[in-house]
Amino acid sequence: MTSPNIKVGIVGANGYAGAEVLRLIASHPSAELSVVTSRAHFGKRVCDVFPALPSPLVFSDMNDPSLKKCDVVFVALPQTAGAALVGELIDANVRVIDLSADYRFDDVELYEKTYNVAHPRPDLASIAVYGLCEADRDKIHNARLVANPGCYVTSVLLPMLPLCKAGLVSDIIADSKSGTSGAGRKSDEAYSFCTVDENFKAYGVFTHRHAPEMSEKLGKPILFTPHLLPIKRGILSTVYFDVTDADKALNVLRTAYNNEPFVSYTDALPEISSVAYTNRCLFSARFSEKRGIVVSVIDNLLKGAAGQAVQNMNIMFGLNDTAGLPLYAPV
Amino acid sequence: MTSPNIKVGIVGANGYAGAEVLRLIASHPSAELSVVTSRAHFGKRVCDVFPALPSPLVFSDMNDPSLKKCDVVFVALPQTAGAALVGELIDANVRVIDLSADYRFDDVELYEKTYNVAHPRPDLASIAVYGLCEADRDKIHNARLVANPGCYVTSVLLPMLPLCKAGLVSDIIADSKSGTSGAGRKSDEAYSFCTVDENFKAYGVFTHRHAPEMSEKLGKPILFTPHLLPIKRGILSTVYFDVTDADKALNVLRTAYNNEPFVSYTDALPEISSVAYTNRCLFSARFSEKRGIVVSVIDNLLKGAAGQAVQNMNIMFGLNDTAGLPLYAPV
Amino acid sequence: MTSPNIKVGIVGANGYAGAEVLRLIASHPSAELSVVTSRAHFGKRVCDVFPALPSPLVFSDMNDPSLKKCDVVFVALPQTAGAALVGELIDANVRVIDLSADYRFDDVELYEKTYNVAHPRPDLASIAVYGLCEADRDKIHNARLVANPGCYVTSVLLPMLPLCKAGLVSDIIADSKSGTSGAGRKSDEAYSFCTVDENFKAYGVFTHRHAPEMSEKLGKPILFTPHLLPIKRGILSTVYFDVTDADKALNVLRTAYNNEPFVSYTDALPEISSVAYTNRCLFSARFSEKRGIVVSVIDNLLKGAAGQAVQNMNIMFGLNDTAGLPLYAPV
Amino acid sequence: MTSPNIKVGIVGANGYAGAEVLRLIASHPSAELSVVTSRAHFGKRVCDVFPALPSPLVFSDMNDPSLKKCDVVFVALPQTAGAALVGELIDANVRVIDLSADYRFDDVELYEKTYNVAHPRPDLASIAVYGLCEADRDKIHNARLVANPGCYVTSVLLPMLPLCKAGLVSDIIADSKSGTSGAGRKSDEAYSFCTVDENFKAYGVFTHRHAPEMSEKLGKPILFTPHLLPIKRGILSTVYFDVTDADKALNVLRTAYNNEPFVSYTDALPEISSVAYTNRCLFSARFSEKRGIVVSVIDNLLKGAAGQAVQNMNIMFGLNDTAGLPLYAPV
Repeated sequence: MTSPNIKVGIVGANGYAGAEVLRLIASHPSAELSVVTSRAHFGKRVCDVFPALPSPLVFSDMNDPSLKKCDVVFVALPQTAGAALVGELIDANVRVIDLSADYRFDDVELYEKTYNVAHPRPDLASIAVYGLCEADRDKIHNARLVANPGCYVTSVLLPMLPLCKAGLVSDIIADSKSGTSGAGRKSDEAYSFCTVDENFKAYGVFTHRHAPEMSEKLGKPILFTPHLLPIKRGILSTVYFDVTDADKALNVLRTAYNNEPFVSYTDALPEISSVAYTNRCLFSARFSEKRGIVVSVIDNLLKGAAGQAVQNMNIMFGLNDTAGLPLYAPV
Repeated sequence: MTSPNIKVGIVGANGYAGAEVLRLIASHPSAELSVVTSRAHFGKRVCDVFPALPSPLVFSDMNDPSLKKCDVVFVALPQTAGAALVGELIDANVRVIDLSADYRFDDVELYEKTYNVAHPRPDLASIAVYGLCEADRDKIHNARLVANPGCYVTSVLLPMLPLCKAGLVSDIIADSKSGTSGAGRKSDEAYSFCTVDENFKAYGVFTHRHAPEMSEKLGKPILFTPHLLPIKRGILSTVYFDVTDADKALNVLRTAYNNEPFVSYTDALPEISSVAYTNRCLFSARFSEKRGIVVSVIDNLLKGAAGQAVQNMNIMFGLNDTAGLPLYAPV
Repeated sequence: MTSPNIKVGIVGANGYAGAEVLRLIASHPSAELSVVTSRAHFGKRVCDVFPALPSPLVFSDMNDPSLKKCDVVFVALPQTAGAALVGELIDANVRVIDLSADYRFDDVELYEKTYNVAHPRPDLASIAVYGLCEADRDKIHNARLVANPGCYVTSVLLPMLPLCKAGLVSDIIADSKSGTSGAGRKSDEAYSFCTVDENFKAYGVFTHRHAPEMSEKLGKPILFTPHLLPIKRGILSTVYFDVTDADKALNVLRTAYNNEPFVSYTDALPEISSVAYTNRCLFSARFSEKRGIVVSVIDNLLKGAAGQAVQNMNIMFGLNDTAGLPLYAPV
Repeated sequence: MTSPNIKVGIVGANGYAGAEVLRLIASHPSAELSVVTSRAHFGKRVCDVFPALPSPLVFSDMNDPSLKKCDVVFVALPQTAGAALVGELIDANVRVIDLSADYRFDDVELYEKTYNVAHPRPDLASIAVYGLCEADRDKIHNARLVANPGCYVTSVLLPMLPLCKAGLVSDIIADSKSGTSGAGRKSDEAYSFCTVDENFKAYGVFTHRHAPEMSEKLGKPILFTPHLLPIKRGILSTVYFDVTDADKALNVLRTAYNNEPFVSYTDALPEISSVAYTNRCLFSARFSEKRGIVVSVIDNLLKGAAGQAVQNMNIMFGLNDTAGLPLYAPV
């Protein structure tokens, strides 16, 4: 095959997002897995730790010098934990796709207030590109550091950004529901099977950290309420707003992503199962006179995390967006 | 035992709501199951059709004259299907608790428009009492015909009625999520396990029939969006509204049901599993300056249907509200 | 009410089995909750810890002297943890129903080998009565100490004991499947929602501790393989065996529990949902020439734990077996 | 791309197995989707019927002459429904992979007895090759007609065939558990969400049609009991047997598939989630003196149906077995 073989590192491959990047890269036609790290599993073979991932690679750690020989490194660590490493990699001319919140905010103070930490590398904030693929493809292509968007944020921005840019909407409420993998790999009774199964709850009302990220990108305040669904994967966001011109708004939604392989308006209201295990986002809308409702669905670990990260890699390296990414959802 | 033994009939015991009434009455300390009907299972023993319900009673049909010898008959049929029978029973001085929508509306025209049918017995609409137990206990006590409220409606009215009566809120949006038993016993691919499991969707946006019922009872318009949860039982409603005085509103919510065994304000946001398989409604609230959010949970088949129906029976016959009704949720 | 009011204590009410005893006793017509203990929640009100259990009682601890004023105490602690307390209570003439494995074995050495511990109170082993309600009602009635059987064990013994006593079967294999609540309240990734949901596995092959308990009670070796079901509650055991006379065996199964309210042979193969949230055991059988297969279902937390424990209390105190115990399964 | 572009037809793409073949072929690097048929959806675009499958192809029907221009046609219809078409395609020199039971049996009478039908084309039975990929790769490579094995059968044969061929085992019992997609796309209350969720049952005891298929291929009788799991995808089979030499048996299992990409012995007991959404089969074994237990897992719709079918296509056309087939399981 004559396509470029991108050398890939993954830091934090034990977490769900990192493990999904690993899975995608392992079967990517133009990428090659060079290094995977996990503090918890250092020195063990991936296939011995995760029978689901039959890779013979051995987990390394964050200090592995091979990371600096990669073409691109995915960093999938909790906020601030990967920040120093991200800086070193950038300094070593390795391109980085960071799945944490560290570099998502234009406004560093807003980041610090939202996450209640000092920003580890404010100097890098200015070179980071926000990796909402369909919104910023050119910038992403040239980026040294891509900040992969939050999962809830992606489900809301994709339909709402075009409406906000067109100046058609106000007073936005996003009522979002996420599968439990969004909480990450957990040893916690709150995420135990017997607690989550046959249950449903709201959480983080008025306080969830994805609200400021949405607001900054939309340029508008937003009221955001997340809920925990008893399913493994998927987000559905029901977004309510006041609309000045429903016809125009519908037209904006129908046409905004005409040439995009992964993002589509559908006449029918979309369901999570239509996008689970794919990198797609589907949305639809309904309008009364002054009110609009958008329903949007993604797979939180793919378009909401690992899939969008790989799509960002594809864009950075001049590949088709769809390379190595699933479009069709299983039964 | 010296307590009154109420002779009970159940029409439509094959449906989920009817089957739950059957289950509750079978172990009710002051009621006695006299007649159960099911067109589908006429002539069969309940225990042979439903191994889960070990009753030796034989399913009868709607024409069974024993129905007129009951003290009270629960009618759990689709709208209009039980209306003629309800009339006959009322004429025969049998008290009726109707679980359909037929007698829920004060405004008969609104009913006809909402359900797209001619009202079968508009003459009875005026004697029917809306059976939201905690709101209308006195009227229910004396009622000959009780119209049991809709499941979504109950989850919204219990917290929102006191706020509306106090004139504190406007611009209400109810984003509700229901377990699949709310759709009833179904042979339909849309409700098959492989369709619903690991899935989630919105439906009936701007068009669900429970919205007019909510509006009429609240005396205000409401934007209502239902969603289908991949669980068997339970409703969680997230209700957004503008509030004129948050402190007053919180106080109203905290005190409205102080003496009620089944309805409670909780400081923590309630989860469906805390009320599943019980007749309770729990709710909590959060406020910003001008916005309020209420989260409310019920079991759709108990407080949202069969449980509230039995509670209505208890009130009609002067028993404690809690007689024969579960307060404690299982693990 | 003139029925006896049994004063009840529950030790270990935080665990799933203890919480279910609490739930059952709270609505039991002839029992009164006096003391509930939980090390984890000492000093807190039950309703504040568990919104699902609206009891105003305050959690006490194991040293609470009120325990010795109870008529009966349910001890729901891990093996050996409650043994000293059980001894003290027995010495104080309080009757005890122990839900652990401590007193289940006739053969103390077998217990010690199986659980790899020294028996805490071998002197009490001889007075303990094995509480398989339908098998030992008279002994249980007079018992000071009842050892509540294991959940898997109950599902297998109820159908297989009569067959073994009749000398009709040999070469028994029990392939059992349990809901996840059988593992108890857990903060462990192995029991997290994302691990268990949409998954299924065998575990403890050739090594599970319920096998020796089954063998001792059946008087025969048994090959037992447990599996973990992605459901909250219920056990289904598929039991394979060689049979000498299939007709006789079927007759034994059909008649063994003719007068029992909770245990029944059914012609159709039983499903877990027919017994979930009830205290029943249903089983059926199929035979070829020399082989038999029994399928048996229970709710692991009720007939397999808390429900059988309360049934034992009912027997001990001369009440109907069914007092306070659910017979009808919800939808 | 220089790799061969195989022109593919799919008959019965509405069913779950057919839809999964469609999904796999749509992203297969060396295949091209030419025709898809569905009686139910004739004339509609795939993407309009199934938002999860964004293919612009229009559903055709079984009479579409383009089927005869395909290099290979997957026929995913109920038994006998596709038999005439299979004959026509073979006569037209189109290679066929049949996912029904029609051509699985060497013994046509056994087929007719098992399925209670007259064999539609007994003349073709002799040219059909049984498509258990790892067992018959050479024959499959040259086959004109491949009979894709049953899902349960695959889970049992892969570990048990080597043991049977080595003459090491007897008295086999397979206790198998399958996800609900195994029952196909259904509008049937028995497969509704509220019936299947939180439930588990055995069915087809002594009568399931996969038992004769297993027996014929193993050359031995087998006692087979299937069960219905409340999950979408996956089969776990727990297989019990008498063993003459446990060490030899273990060695056979460890080495039988050394060079196979999809089939592996694992030391740990395998779980369904390790193979869901992949084409793999994992198994492990435990032995006592005379008894052995194998636990085996597959995805019923992939290695148990569509995945094995595509693997058969890969073998027929000289591609790598793994082309277009997933090896890594998602979180």
